Amino acid sequence: RINGARLQQRIAQLAEIGAIDGGGCARLALTDADRAGRDQVCDWMRELGLAVTVDAIGNVVGVRAGRQSGAAVMTGSHIDTVRTGGRFDGNYGVLAGLEVIATLNDAGIVTEHPLAVAFFTNEEGARFAPDMMGSLVYTGALPLGEALATRGIDGTTVGEELQRIAYAGPAPVPAAAPRAFIELHVEQGPVLDREGTQIGVVESVQGISWTEIEILGTSNHAGTTPMALRRDAGWVAGAIIHFVRELAQELGGNQVATVGRIEFFPNLVNVVPNRAVLTVDLRNTDEARLQMAEARLAAHLDALRDAEKVDIATRSLARFAPVPFAAQMCDRIEHHARTQGLSTRRMPSGAGHDAQMLAAVCPTAMIFVPSVDGVSHNVREHTHPEHIEAGANVLLAVLCELAGA
Amino acid sequence: RINGARLQQRIAQLAEIGAIDGGGCARLALTDADRAGRDQVCDWMRELGLAVTVDAIGNVVGVRAGRQSGAAVMTGSHIDTVRTGGRFDGNYGVLAGLEVIATLNDAGIVTEHPLAVAFFTNEEGARFAPDMMGSLVYTGALPLGEALATRGIDGTTVGEELQRIAYAGPAPVPAAAPRAFIELHVEQGPVLDREGTQIGVVESVQGISWTEIEILGTSNHAGTTPMALRRDAGWVAGAIIHFVRELAQELGGNQVATVGRIEFFPNLVNVVPNRAVLTVDLRNTDEARLQMAEARLAAHLDALRDAEKVDIATRSLARFAPVPFAAQMCDRIEHHARTQGLSTRRMPSGAGHDAQMLAAVCPTAMIFVPSVDGVSHNVREHTHPEHIEAGANVLLAVLCELAGA
Ligand SMILES: NC(=O)NCCC(=O)O
Ligand SMILES: NC(=O)NCCC(=O)O
Repeated sequence: RINGARLQQRIAQLAEIGAIDGGGCARLALTDADRAGRDQVCDWMRELGLAVTVDAIGNVVGVRAGRQSGAAVMTGSHIDTVRTGGRFDGNYGVLAGLEVIATLNDAGIVTEHPLAVAFFTNEEGARFAPDMMGSLVYTGALPLGEALATRGIDGTTVGEELQRIAYAGPAPVPAAAPRAFIELHVEQGPVLDREGTQIGVVESVQGISWTEIEILGTSNHAGTTPMALRRDAGWVAGAIIHFVRELAQELGGNQVATVGRIEFFPNLVNVVPNRAVLTVDLRNTDEARLQMAEARLAAHLDALRDAEKVDIATRSLARFAPVPFAAQMCDRIEHHARTQGLSTRRMPSGAGHDAQMLAAVCPTAMIFVPSVDGVSHNVREHTHPEHIEAGANVLLAVLCELAGA
Repeated sequence: RINGARLQQRIAQLAEIGAIDGGGCARLALTDADRAGRDQVCDWMRELGLAVTVDAIGNVVGVRAGRQSGAAVMTGSHIDTVRTGGRFDGNYGVLAGLEVIATLNDAGIVTEHPLAVAFFTNEEGARFAPDMMGSLVYTGALPLGEALATRGIDGTTVGEELQRIAYAGPAPVPAAAPRAFIELHVEQGPVLDREGTQIGVVESVQGISWTEIEILGTSNHAGTTPMALRRDAGWVAGAIIHFVRELAQELGGNQVATVGRIEFFPNLVNVVPNRAVLTVDLRNTDEARLQMAEARLAAHLDALRDAEKVDIATRSLARFAPVPFAAQMCDRIEHHARTQGLSTRRMPSGAGHDAQMLAAVCPTAMIFVPSVDGVSHNVREHTHPEHIEAGANVLLAVLCELAGA
């Protein structure tokens, strides 16, 4: 069994890098804080005897040799965070992987197949879209050149920033597929916490659609311009925010819709905005319903374009269909959790995860533990220590079975 | 009669300072560009023989002596601009005043009373609220200390920035009232241009209400947080934008309503915003109807607070009741315009102006000239040369009568 205190200690130490008020972290992908976090985790990997490689998109993989060579059984997640991030999101999965390695080291166990712990670049997508960028490139779903050329919210590119923080490594991408992939993560939603279930067996990840919308109108005087003569880019942005909530309510079910980012130009109290840029994040577990939401949004943009006589341009920042995980992997997770006396429930993931990219190249599934009040992307994100420990023990058991311990 | 070419030449030269693409200017109050513009206009004032004083809030007054001492007949406006400003807004009134002085100098005319040309600090209110700050302090309607302590959109204060650009002058405020005040300005709205009228006789300025609204919600994950559990500050901001347009449409008449400035935090695609700040600009020529608009907005904020369980705080950035101008001053403007063969119409001003503050301390009115297509606070703001010249000739005639030429 894993050492819960040692795992918590690593989580706390990593959270000191980029720490923000309230106990959270701000380590946006490829910033100085991300570099410092990466250096720390690489040090730990080497201390644990792992062979560490860095690939061309900055993914880091630490491998523990097995009795046989060949593809490793892999676990991992990410260590980048959003600007108001918690300390568990992503970090937990990576550090629980290291805790499994430490536990095997302590017990002197050598597995049949190699074991690998990975952390993937820019999973959050907060600075550079799309999210899950590292795992997309790792599995060949996104060409390296396209990823490196991506320009972020601050105008820099992924390639420049990787060079700057010295994490553009020599290992080639796409990489050879692992033997299997398991990602342990906090749920980030309210389901497990509410019903008091200890372990979530994640069967799928819902579809994600991110669109950036740019509206071009005419700047004009707020006091002298009659309402009927306005081409108000700001009003159109507000109308989109209003519509997107209505859309989610009308579609119902598990449809969610969010406008998280917005900017007005010239952004002054007495000037009708001539330009507005905002993002829409739409998600649904059902691809047909997600497409319906996208179509409804597009139709509404057409109506707004006509009504306010503005120009509207859209750009897809990320688009992933729902991803099912491997049934036999879910069964293994459920089996080991129950053997350990833990309550389980099968569930989809509301958040995107690197595992959804790995699922395209090897048998993959995820383990969730409860998030207190379902709060995430917030410094108050929290998971109780007993759940942190329980999830890592399920991970240990599943990895041992898959790697042959 | 004034020299239209010489006036256009000064307008073009001043527009080179802080010039932006498309023929406009960005000289936000108390920036380096504003300083450079001020230096230029002060040089011109001294070349024309005016005695230049700078007061404690940075207002600049150039005085031409009359046969008698005592209060001057004053004209003037402002030379600060918004970030997407045109070249005529404010600048025209100041430079037309200088052109009147140059014309009197050329003709060797000495007036009975002194003549003064002023430009007031931060009329636009785009960087520091309230707008018309310099004239408010000049007339004693806003205490100097309060004005100097005002923090702007970039976090600096008026006092610091005045010191930095060396325009915190020795002349005391409030100042002694002028004998009368006339402000010449481009209409900035569509009325005169549409009906082909050459001169607007401005009888009043509509009421202005600026409110900054801060919404505090809970940052959370865009993918995992069910719609019903959100405290989404960004959605509330969008709902306010949506409401404000509806409010203007319902109240009808000349009610206008604008959300020109907005910011989300943390402003990331996949994070439900925990904080949003936006401004609402409401205007009406009728004080009772403006109060009704404010009350309706306040009631809607209460409803949104309850519905989304967010905190909402409001802060008044500017609040001015409608201001009537002096009837005998309007009559003088109308008389001289007609004598010069120009068509006129009586009208209210949709924009705020320094004249509305001077109206509290001396007989005051304004002269408008047409704005092509009513476009303003936009680099495309334009007034035809014949209208620029006509307005300055009306100003010349009115000032000569008031000052006794
Ligand atoms: N796990 C997680 O927060 N991923 C970020 C990508 C997303 O779902 O927005
Ligand atoms: N004239 C002018 O644009 N004044 C700025 C103040 C306002 O917003 O009306």
